[in-house]
Amino acid sequence: MHSYFHVAIVTLLTALLCFGMAAQVARTRVKVGIFAPAMTGDPLLERTIRAHLNTLEWMPIFLPSLWLFALYWSPLGATILGTVWIVGRIVYFIGYRSAAKSRSPGFFIQALAAFALLLGALGRIVYLAATT
Amino acid sequence: MHSYFHVAIVTLLTALLCFGMAAQVARTRVKVGIFAPAMTGDPLLERTIRAHLNTLEWMPIFLPSLWLFALYWSPLGATILGTVWIVGRIVYFIGYRSAAKSRSPGFFIQALAAFALLLGALGRIVYLAATT
Amino acid sequence: MHSYFHVAIVTLLTALLCFGMAAQVARTRVKVGIFAPAMTGDPLLERTIRAHLNTLEWMPIFLPSLWLFALYWSPLGATILGTVWIVGRIVYFIGYRSAAKSRSPGFFIQALAAFALLLGALGRIVYLAATT
Repeated sequence: MHSYFHVAIVTLLTALLCFGMAAQVARTRVKVGIFAPAMTGDPLLERTIRAHLNTLEWMPIFLPSLWLFALYWSPLGATILGTVWIVGRIVYFIGYRSAAKSRSPGFFIQALAAFALLLGALGRIVYLAATT
Repeated sequence: MHSYFHVAIVTLLTALLCFGMAAQVARTRVKVGIFAPAMTGDPLLERTIRAHLNTLEWMPIFLPSLWLFALYWSPLGATILGTVWIVGRIVYFIGYRSAAKSRSPGFFIQALAAFALLLGALGRIVYLAATT
Repeated sequence: MHSYFHVAIVTLLTALLCFGMAAQVARTRVKVGIFAPAMTGDPLLERTIRAHLNTLEWMPIFLPSLWLFALYWSPLGATILGTVWIVGRIVYFIGYRSAAKSRSPGFFIQALAAFALLLGALGRIVYLAATT
């Protein structure tokens, strides 16, 4: 149980990150004067909404890969890659807020970390299944 | 394993809640005559879609916090807070359907329950990591 | 641990499926010349986006049901139903891309598999809670 402390903390920081992005959407709504349920009408609001929702779209990729990597391979490796993913997502969100094209560097960082977790877990499990 | 029966039931009721909201979106589409893939064009449909999607946006906050709270602290506490969260989400959904401003009470209830789970789990894990 | 190899592989294939759908959205954006953060403006793009996002909307239904079915009942049953779900989602995505009405067969397949997992897990846990 205590081997997974840091993976659990990364998971809860990811939850806080999701909340922080949603809160930024809410603040941007007030700033530009466009209220729910409207999802369009201002470029900054639309970029902020998409930055939040793209992060949500990657949750079923990131969270299961993080935990399966931790459980079947290495909690430490999962913690490091998970932390890189969070940093990439913050860079992505700040970049996307400033301009649509500025989302690329952060997106690339988080995609690398997520794929390292996904393919690492998949490769490890297939290896274990073949050798046990 | 049997300690987590009720947390598992809360999780599956949450899945049914997600399905119920999606089904309500489908019924509203028929009622107002706006069909997929259109996401706009009628205020009631737009509010119903947002009520459903906001619930989805909170899933990476709620579900991991629920289970980490249960695993590292208290399955009973997780069950109670998880049930409050579901009730808050139902109040939120019904309120949002009637008017955008009426979503606040339910939103507040579910946010309180989700943050109790998130910060409770985080505090507990940091405490355990520091003392073991 | 090794009992869950195949459930873990189904989970990671689901993550790859999510990524594949998002990549198809990106390719469709290039094809029709409508770039993020815009979400509307071309029927094919709108159908592709909805096919991706509807799959995302079912994640909190599918993934928890898959694992609770596996843990409390049968990893083999979860693996088979999970594979049917993925196949249904691929049929759904290809169908929805061609026309909104063509999404029904795949939707029906994945809904059947997801509900078998959800209600199977729920029934099994309630049974176990009542008899232990």
